[in-house]
Amino acid sequence: MEKYNIYVGGTFTQTNQIISVKNSFDNSEIAQTFLAGKNELETAITKAIEVKDIMKNMPAFLKYDILMLIAQKLNLQKELFAITIAKEACKPLKLATAEVERSIQTFTIAAEESKRIHREYLSLDWTPSGNNKEGLVKYFPIGIVAGIAPFNFPLNLAVHKIAPALAAGCPIILKPSRSTPLSTLLLAKIIDQTELPKGAFSVLPMDREAGNQLVTDNRINLLSFTGSPEVGWNMKNQAGKKRVLLELGGNAGLIVSDSADVETAVKKSVSGAFAYAGQVCIHTQRIFVQDKIFDKFTDLFVEQTKKLVTGKPELQETDFSAMIDLENAIRVEQWINEAQQNGAKVLYGAKRNNTFVEPTIITNTNNNMKVNCCEVFGPVVTIEKYDHFNSAIQQLNNSEFGLQAGVFTNYISEMNLAFNNIEAGGVIINDVPTFRVDHMPYGGIKNSGFGREGVKYSIAEMLEPKLLVKNIL
Amino acid sequence: MEKYNIYVGGTFTQTNQIISVKNSFDNSEIAQTFLAGKNELETAITKAIEVKDIMKNMPAFLKYDILMLIAQKLNLQKELFAITIAKEACKPLKLATAEVERSIQTFTIAAEESKRIHREYLSLDWTPSGNNKEGLVKYFPIGIVAGIAPFNFPLNLAVHKIAPALAAGCPIILKPSRSTPLSTLLLAKIIDQTELPKGAFSVLPMDREAGNQLVTDNRINLLSFTGSPEVGWNMKNQAGKKRVLLELGGNAGLIVSDSADVETAVKKSVSGAFAYAGQVCIHTQRIFVQDKIFDKFTDLFVEQTKKLVTGKPELQETDFSAMIDLENAIRVEQWINEAQQNGAKVLYGAKRNNTFVEPTIITNTNNNMKVNCCEVFGPVVTIEKYDHFNSAIQQLNNSEFGLQAGVFTNYISEMNLAFNNIEAGGVIINDVPTFRVDHMPYGGIKNSGFGREGVKYSIAEMLEPKLLVKNIL
Amino acid sequence: MEKYNIYVGGTFTQTNQIISVKNSFDNSEIAQTFLAGKNELETAITKAIEVKDIMKNMPAFLKYDILMLIAQKLNLQKELFAITIAKEACKPLKLATAEVERSIQTFTIAAEESKRIHREYLSLDWTPSGNNKEGLVKYFPIGIVAGIAPFNFPLNLAVHKIAPALAAGCPIILKPSRSTPLSTLLLAKIIDQTELPKGAFSVLPMDREAGNQLVTDNRINLLSFTGSPEVGWNMKNQAGKKRVLLELGGNAGLIVSDSADVETAVKKSVSGAFAYAGQVCIHTQRIFVQDKIFDKFTDLFVEQTKKLVTGKPELQETDFSAMIDLENAIRVEQWINEAQQNGAKVLYGAKRNNTFVEPTIITNTNNNMKVNCCEVFGPVVTIEKYDHFNSAIQQLNNSEFGLQAGVFTNYISEMNLAFNNIEAGGVIINDVPTFRVDHMPYGGIKNSGFGREGVKYSIAEMLEPKLLVKNIL
Amino acid sequence: MEKYNIYVGGTFTQTNQIISVKNSFDNSEIAQTFLAGKNELETAITKAIEVKDIMKNMPAFLKYDILMLIAQKLNLQKELFAITIAKEACKPLKLATAEVERSIQTFTIAAEESKRIHREYLSLDWTPSGNNKEGLVKYFPIGIVAGIAPFNFPLNLAVHKIAPALAAGCPIILKPSRSTPLSTLLLAKIIDQTELPKGAFSVLPMDREAGNQLVTDNRINLLSFTGSPEVGWNMKNQAGKKRVLLELGGNAGLIVSDSADVETAVKKSVSGAFAYAGQVCIHTQRIFVQDKIFDKFTDLFVEQTKKLVTGKPELQETDFSAMIDLENAIRVEQWINEAQQNGAKVLYGAKRNNTFVEPTIITNTNNNMKVNCCEVFGPVVTIEKYDHFNSAIQQLNNSEFGLQAGVFTNYISEMNLAFNNIEAGGVIINDVPTFRVDHMPYGGIKNSGFGREGVKYSIAEMLEPKLLVKNIL
Repeated sequence: MEKYNIYVGGTFTQTNQIISVKNSFDNSEIAQTFLAGKNELETAITKAIEVKDIMKNMPAFLKYDILMLIAQKLNLQKELFAITIAKEACKPLKLATAEVERSIQTFTIAAEESKRIHREYLSLDWTPSGNNKEGLVKYFPIGIVAGIAPFNFPLNLAVHKIAPALAAGCPIILKPSRSTPLSTLLLAKIIDQTELPKGAFSVLPMDREAGNQLVTDNRINLLSFTGSPEVGWNMKNQAGKKRVLLELGGNAGLIVSDSADVETAVKKSVSGAFAYAGQVCIHTQRIFVQDKIFDKFTDLFVEQTKKLVTGKPELQETDFSAMIDLENAIRVEQWINEAQQNGAKVLYGAKRNNTFVEPTIITNTNNNMKVNCCEVFGPVVTIEKYDHFNSAIQQLNNSEFGLQAGVFTNYISEMNLAFNNIEAGGVIINDVPTFRVDHMPYGGIKNSGFGREGVKYSIAEMLEPKLLVKNIL
Repeated sequence: MEKYNIYVGGTFTQTNQIISVKNSFDNSEIAQTFLAGKNELETAITKAIEVKDIMKNMPAFLKYDILMLIAQKLNLQKELFAITIAKEACKPLKLATAEVERSIQTFTIAAEESKRIHREYLSLDWTPSGNNKEGLVKYFPIGIVAGIAPFNFPLNLAVHKIAPALAAGCPIILKPSRSTPLSTLLLAKIIDQTELPKGAFSVLPMDREAGNQLVTDNRINLLSFTGSPEVGWNMKNQAGKKRVLLELGGNAGLIVSDSADVETAVKKSVSGAFAYAGQVCIHTQRIFVQDKIFDKFTDLFVEQTKKLVTGKPELQETDFSAMIDLENAIRVEQWINEAQQNGAKVLYGAKRNNTFVEPTIITNTNNNMKVNCCEVFGPVVTIEKYDHFNSAIQQLNNSEFGLQAGVFTNYISEMNLAFNNIEAGGVIINDVPTFRVDHMPYGGIKNSGFGREGVKYSIAEMLEPKLLVKNIL
Repeated sequence: MEKYNIYVGGTFTQTNQIISVKNSFDNSEIAQTFLAGKNELETAITKAIEVKDIMKNMPAFLKYDILMLIAQKLNLQKELFAITIAKEACKPLKLATAEVERSIQTFTIAAEESKRIHREYLSLDWTPSGNNKEGLVKYFPIGIVAGIAPFNFPLNLAVHKIAPALAAGCPIILKPSRSTPLSTLLLAKIIDQTELPKGAFSVLPMDREAGNQLVTDNRINLLSFTGSPEVGWNMKNQAGKKRVLLELGGNAGLIVSDSADVETAVKKSVSGAFAYAGQVCIHTQRIFVQDKIFDKFTDLFVEQTKKLVTGKPELQETDFSAMIDLENAIRVEQWINEAQQNGAKVLYGAKRNNTFVEPTIITNTNNNMKVNCCEVFGPVVTIEKYDHFNSAIQQLNNSEFGLQAGVFTNYISEMNLAFNNIEAGGVIINDVPTFRVDHMPYGGIKNSGFGREGVKYSIAEMLEPKLLVKNIL
Repeated sequence: MEKYNIYVGGTFTQTNQIISVKNSFDNSEIAQTFLAGKNELETAITKAIEVKDIMKNMPAFLKYDILMLIAQKLNLQKELFAITIAKEACKPLKLATAEVERSIQTFTIAAEESKRIHREYLSLDWTPSGNNKEGLVKYFPIGIVAGIAPFNFPLNLAVHKIAPALAAGCPIILKPSRSTPLSTLLLAKIIDQTELPKGAFSVLPMDREAGNQLVTDNRINLLSFTGSPEVGWNMKNQAGKKRVLLELGGNAGLIVSDSADVETAVKKSVSGAFAYAGQVCIHTQRIFVQDKIFDKFTDLFVEQTKKLVTGKPELQETDFSAMIDLENAIRVEQWINEAQQNGAKVLYGAKRNNTFVEPTIITNTNNNMKVNCCEVFGPVVTIEKYDHFNSAIQQLNNSEFGLQAGVFTNYISEMNLAFNNIEAGGVIINDVPTFRVDHMPYGGIKNSGFGREGVKYSIAEMLEPKLLVKNIL
């Protein structure tokens, strides 16, 4: 079985705790890697500290060259990365390929933004006490970044921490998900071949206990976590003096107005609901459709869902495959059952076979059902009617989450109502809440998160301003 | 008869050429002032040069204090200014008062912006040759500004040159319209009481010949002209090395979609068409109404127009009064006649009595008629049907002008089409093209102008960047 | 005795727990006010929630008008505020007057910035998936702000929380220091007369226990604390989901190079060391002087210090007065003694009389002494020699704090070294670390704080971005 | 003899007027190309108009891909381009290679900036009339650009027009210098292989008469000219309604303070004076050295100059070669003679052999001599003493030009004096005025130019703002 060494402070190494990485479609082992412990973490932190000043003083052209080189090498190995993601994450190859392309884009943007670190040049003479003085504000790297990445975009959500950190001039220690560590370890091989100083990047698969040191250790200056709300918010209160970024989950809502183009809305929302079996933070979970078009919408929605090609993740034609593990598949099945037992009607799907859960469309739900009020993170969507647009917004907002929302409409007035009143980090007009491009600000309010990602925005979080006041006479 | 001295290089003075200022409503003389000649202009230029460095080095807090003091004093004398404008420009008192309020706002914004002159702080290390270097870009006043202002907003369109110039640190010589010089001479009295160095502001009524030296004199660094296209474009080619800003006219179009609220659209567009007898650069001249609502729109439009209260400009209740002079009134009458002779149908108005021209609504026009293809600058509006939104845009664009346009619609798709395809400096959704607030960028394309006003934008034009490259090690 | 009612959710009220406010110069009672308890806090929070949406939707011109009106009313009552601060905080009248002027400035800037809330307009078409889409990012108020203000600038450091909160559209509950609550209660009277909705501002003197609810209550969305490092950092870990801003203390260092103008350096650093008896976060505590000019510097420094006029705070001529309370005066005396016992040499001062501690100049100190390594927050300065500039930076950085630092030098190379290498939120060239104007970014790194104040920067912390993605075709 | 076809509206073609391109080092013919006439220009303009809308609507990712592809292809053919420039411009190969590298950088920056076209999102509710309205300002391509490029950087100064135009979305017609057309024709071959629509780029060598149509033709919307002041300023007054950018010449000054490191100053200024035989707009022409170090500076300067390796341009070791043509070589010789006849002293050089003029160092000059007051554009530098820094600034400013200036100093006070008082577009501290990186704002004041280049700045000039006002309720 192929073994992936872990990347500790610039050295590829092994430990005595083996992790077996499996494809959840058939539970086959893909490869093995290693669990890092306290020692490895200590080495990673120590090495990161050693290169902190080199990173801080690295000229923009060198950061740019390193980041662009990573992007180019990723591009050359696109198929390898895609197949690795497909297998470790049980993600259909088409989507895995798109993820690699997005990671290339994320590194490219980070390269460009490394030359555009925000700086300010201020007049201070707004009162006599500031006369003949000027201010310059330069943003310096905050120090060492810890990144904790989830299983669902094993490459690109890690890259959303790595690329900005390097662009900002911060060493970064990445903890990938234990179930999907391979793609970031492959990435480590690429990064190891660049001029990035050894120690500025580490990849350490860890168990939760060891990983928790990333939260509490005061030598780490920023924690960027993507994962579940419960874990994330708990971290914030243990983080000591460090800055904390949380990208947590949601139960994203979508409104479809009768002024919208129904065909387009259906096509995009089937994809938003079932892409990667709904295991996406901005998975389209709750759809609110205007009365007049409700039947047309649901009929078309079921029809389109039926066309999804189901199969092994590593095949090019597959649209839909198994969930990440049995535990989650069973959980989703239970939530569907709970909804049905309380009066919900399944329009399609609902059956589970091992780790495979059918794309499931439910209606007649209420807000107490887990499929609505919790983050389902599985291939389930609920579709309900609304009469007035304002009531659709209310239903959508009736949630503890607020990551992104979507609205299909051709009315300016509805667009305005949506943007002013929907409680979310982003409101997507005429597309699903699942929409994301890598340079846009991305993150949630309410329980969905704290701070924003999106390359420029992540970089901003990883910088600390320093003001120079100087005389001009 | 009251005499207003002109303001030459910081001194109130008289010349031997008297200007009689009249209220065109009844041709009564309001006051007298004086024509400046070559000598006065030479004094103004010389004094401006003398204080150029003081202005350049004035700290922000002092510029702020001066500009805010002017705003406050204007506010205290609001009625005096309003009645003066009402009489000299034959502008209904309500509108004259609104103009003074806008001038107060323009000075206030300029005060604030004087503290926020744009500066840049650049990294230069994008290549090894820029390593360990940084750039600062500071914007310095360009030098002496000449402002040439029109009769129609005798105060605020002058203030749109004066306030930015002072905020930028530039001395300014203002040539008001000979028919409406009083309000800026009143303003000079206010400014004279501030700490602004004498010579940094002059108001010189001039004839065209003397005024032309403002265009050709190389000691003047920027010419800001508001007036007719013909005169403006000609100036650009005589301006030598100076920068030129032209705010010229237009024949602004408005599209009313069937998705719009017709009552709102009518109410706003009657105002856009007839406020100040249409003597406004962004006067709503051409309205294109969707077939289905055309009759309703025109009926309501005529009805609303009938309600306009006609009378002396200096009365509070007056909505509509005479034009600026007989020459223009006769010209407008001829254009209406020309349209009628070629098949146009008058829905309302069209009669002239001396300087007074009725609010006039015409339909069945074509694009060869002067009331459409030329800038009418009078109380005339044409209203035509359209079927498809794209054809409305085409009709609107069928003009040599492009200042502003308006669109009443509730469709996102129409808003997008309008913004992408309408050829104008500004597209106003759900309001008339006549909409303007004083801090927005304002100016036209095609024959309508060159450059932008709007306080921050004018200031930007009046500054010259200077780069400092410095080492950081 | 005059009684100041507290301001709870828009109502002036009393409780049964009286606070006696004293002038520490002679321990005389100035006035009485009241301690708020759980009930008052509950009312304040409830009322704040009630007006949250009104605040969020308030147009810029209304926020501007309210904030400018407050500034104008403060200006009209400048003397009253100054004498109140002088007495409650035992602050020399000159400095108290300067503080009021700065508060006027802080409100003015906030008024201006309320019109300039940051917004972004993004192209999204960097990849085909974003084609024909655009992004708008609008920043919405984060919700309810809790401000905890210190005794030393009882007005302006509270205003640095109040003014930005109102500008951002956030209701704010202010907890002033129990020893100096009067000036913010006076301010409440002014604010109560504006159009600000009742409930958007409360002033609640509280004991620590009641006050701690501001930290833990989840209905509050942001905590802005100015005070001691120990208390502040502890709050961060109890703050739950809210955002936290900490403006903590420091032991600010100043380097005086032999290239500097010694007279200027002495004049400014005596002020930095002894203004308000050193009870300033950016008090100049540690001075490092180049060998060659050390003797000249210290001689002049002692000479200048001797000239300080000592006396009652409420007198115009007073430069230097008593400390805030006996406890702190005794603490400072003990720290001086500890330094002397360990070999430090007092060049001037060191005697205590009740709450009065002489301006004290010490040399021959080391970094283990509390007068160096801790925040003295009293009228004590240490002056030491250095040979090479780099070693001065090292000494200055040898501290757990990093708020601001000063450097007097005429060498570009030293300015660059200082800015690149001094660990602080701000580096002031040719002035003392005590320099602050109210619109500059202000805040510390290391143990000195978390986040930045300075009107625009505080506002930014009080806003939450929301992205609108819209199609453009 | 190799023939280079010209590139007219997307087609490589020939005309019946042959241009013979020669290496001025030995007058050998390198290649032949063709003179475009009225017909070719008409084709180029017509084709440009045809693709104007495609260019305007091109998504950012496509512009990025095209521009990055050009950069990559240039990189692959770096040697070919370098040798071509070396021969056609008689430029030492080292410098020619550096020019190609800069062109790669210019295209890369343009690619990045094409994704970052400036946009604004404005609040309009500063007065009640703007309540519930928002503004978006999007910048659209201005239309067709004409670029006129000089001989001295035949590739990169053309690329500074081409790359920004394409990034902005404007078709561009380039007129290269007739003596150095080959490198841009090579570039055309690269660009022709990209997805850029045919017609969006043309390269037309023209004589002045045909070329003048680029200035006067109203279908062209912007003229970007780099060349001589006389020609440039004349164009501005013939340009009709189009925007004009002028990058003209200068006689750049350099001040060397006694606080500077003399060795570094000499090393850099020898290069600034003699690189490419001084045929550079920001050639270091006038050096002002502080009294105390004057002798040391001049001795070292002569010594360093002697080390320059003279020879054929196409050799790697060559530092210094012949001038562009005999006419200019003779002109420079005459100017040197004129200086000598009026009392100037030649410290080195001054001899001419055919097109070769020795690197020439002159002192004892005055400001009436052409070598000081005119743009020498040849291998001549004057070095004079100064006593006080202010007088050095005065001498430097005593010129009709103001492009860039340099100052070697370690004093903050001198840096400030220089930046505040030197009349130039850029002031370079501790480097020569000849310093340029391709993304910095670059351009002159006084007679040296109008507007700024530097990728982002050029793009800004090539855009026209359009405001969208929309309701938000």
